[in-house]
Amino acid sequence: MELIQRFIRPEVLIFDPYSPGLSIDEIREKYKLNNVIKMASNENPLGVSPVVQETIKRNAPLSFRYPSAGNPELCRALGLYLGVDPGRIVCGNGSDEIIDLLIRISACPGRDNILAFKPCFSIYQLQAKLCGVDFRQCPLKPDFSFDWQGLLGLVDEHTKLVFLTNPDNPSGFAVPFSEIETLYMSLPETAILVIDEAYIDFASPLDKFSSLQTALKSERMVILRTFSKLFGLAGLRVGFGIFPRFLADYVRRVRLPFSINVLGEKAAQAALKDSMFKQATLELVLRGRQYLAHELEIMDCEVYPSQANFLMFKPPADARVVFEKLLARGVIVRPLNSYGLSHLIRVSVGTETENKTFISELRAILH
Amino acid sequence: MELIQRFIRPEVLIFDPYSPGLSIDEIREKYKLNNVIKMASNENPLGVSPVVQETIKRNAPLSFRYPSAGNPELCRALGLYLGVDPGRIVCGNGSDEIIDLLIRISACPGRDNILAFKPCFSIYQLQAKLCGVDFRQCPLKPDFSFDWQGLLGLVDEHTKLVFLTNPDNPSGFAVPFSEIETLYMSLPETAILVIDEAYIDFASPLDKFSSLQTALKSERMVILRTFSKLFGLAGLRVGFGIFPRFLADYVRRVRLPFSINVLGEKAAQAALKDSMFKQATLELVLRGRQYLAHELEIMDCEVYPSQANFLMFKPPADARVVFEKLLARGVIVRPLNSYGLSHLIRVSVGTETENKTFISELRAILH
Repeated sequence: MELIQRFIRPEVLIFDPYSPGLSIDEIREKYKLNNVIKMASNENPLGVSPVVQETIKRNAPLSFRYPSAGNPELCRALGLYLGVDPGRIVCGNGSDEIIDLLIRISACPGRDNILAFKPCFSIYQLQAKLCGVDFRQCPLKPDFSFDWQGLLGLVDEHTKLVFLTNPDNPSGFAVPFSEIETLYMSLPETAILVIDEAYIDFASPLDKFSSLQTALKSERMVILRTFSKLFGLAGLRVGFGIFPRFLADYVRRVRLPFSINVLGEKAAQAALKDSMFKQATLELVLRGRQYLAHELEIMDCEVYPSQANFLMFKPPADARVVFEKLLARGVIVRPLNSYGLSHLIRVSVGTETENKTFISELRAILH
Repeated sequence: MELIQRFIRPEVLIFDPYSPGLSIDEIREKYKLNNVIKMASNENPLGVSPVVQETIKRNAPLSFRYPSAGNPELCRALGLYLGVDPGRIVCGNGSDEIIDLLIRISACPGRDNILAFKPCFSIYQLQAKLCGVDFRQCPLKPDFSFDWQGLLGLVDEHTKLVFLTNPDNPSGFAVPFSEIETLYMSLPETAILVIDEAYIDFASPLDKFSSLQTALKSERMVILRTFSKLFGLAGLRVGFGIFPRFLADYVRRVRLPFSINVLGEKAAQAALKDSMFKQATLELVLRGRQYLAHELEIMDCEVYPSQANFLMFKPPADARVVFEKLLARGVIVRPLNSYGLSHLIRVSVGTETENKTFISELRAILH
């Protein structure tokens, strides 16, 4: 205990102990199951594109080389793909790294503050805490929509970053970019608006929801994107941000030079080109989302409208019990206790078979 | 400019702009070369073990899954391999991440300080700067050996971390663990000693140089290791630290949960098992190091004794000119300007063919 006080910063003492979850294999063993399906982490139900798998295999022999510092190839490919100046793009070891760097380069500990809705993606808060920066949260409305006035009420002259997830997680709620534009205009010039568009590819139509074009015209707006969802590369840890030029410049200066691994960089470039896989994923997810919403409603679940690759719902029974019973039947979904929403469950859209299995197991549990 | 002042922390303003180096392909094109050999980054001359390549290929389809938070499998494998309690091991996205986390969890900005020799691995200093923590350096002796008295002279009651690289980079100089043990006893109880053993596998005999056994008995000693060198996985970004238990606990609490990619984790586990590849690398490097030292001395280069997989030397001509001429002939070595050693060159031990090519090109340049 004495050692801890001596060596651990006060800001770090409040972090919770790390508790590893069970792996799919461990769940299989624990419940004596042959098949386990995971619909808990919003991964791509089609897995990894065959084209990308080939790219990984072909590049495996290059794994002994350090990556190119700053990932210039991938930034160029993303620039072309998005129609954005590559100088405005910085890639990270997942968006997590970009979130951390944004806080580190801009927010002064003990003075500045960061805003987000509540609940929100845990990493915003954890990294703010680690940096010793005040983290302020405005509760979402009861229907999980965004309380703009409430959020603006928390802003002051020391607000450096405002984090917004659109579509939101875990609800799936999304707003058109025009609403975000209005928020942006109401923010003081001392604040940067960060729109985490991890799930934007599943919002339909994309043009109505994405703030990318607005961001390109703005001096204080950042867009975060990821290869973990639509592109099926959650395990390779590649995210990126589109920044105002001055901000990209400084994020690049402080980023650890080799944060993205070589196979992740190559796989991401291949994934950008595989439009067939992207299209297949989109079709599967939008169809599956509709199917799941419909079936859940039939079972008297309260389903929240979603523009993402998952659905949040309130089962007509104790959500924690439902989660545990699904687990015992080999279906892993996401309980939302850690979001302070223990009456709700989040389920990722799976393959057709996974969706059907989930629905039939849930039906068996509820009846 | 005004935006920069408003949004970028003063600690970050002093970071140098990012300047991308040339890739091997770009060098090939620029100098119209068919063959380019890279002996600049201390990578494994044998590349990636065939067993590891197979593991990567087999696991490519799993890249859509998030990694296991905290990498419990890899920690267990490392525990077995090293004979260390896995609870003392934390893996990171390269040792870079572990270095950053060590500073972040222990050093209070504006109060604490961090010590290292000068020159040293740039990441110690960069991450200290980013954290706003005072970074103090004691010059190495002229022969690149460690000035213990000088280092101890910089210690005060706010010294939180003392970084030591053994074998050292870029010199290759190494000390027996017994000397480090003596330093450790002389440090006040407020300081943690971090021994970066990135190159320890090439020190011979290992038992004489590695501080691992001492660290296991100590409350304030950390060992850093990497899969980038002996294991041939620089591109997959896997490093790890062996910590006192309380420190491992807190590093794990603040670490981004998915910092290591799934293929890196699988590849690292396979690499630990491939003792034939390890043995072949070791033999090749030790033989090549001896060959290169001998040939360089014949050419009147001043060669510094090395226990690593590289050699530092002073050519009998302007080192920057020699570097440029080697580059134009398709041999990439490391000029040491960024270490403040513009009269020296570092060359990584390559394959037999690469070593011979380097020597013959250098001979042609010098004569």
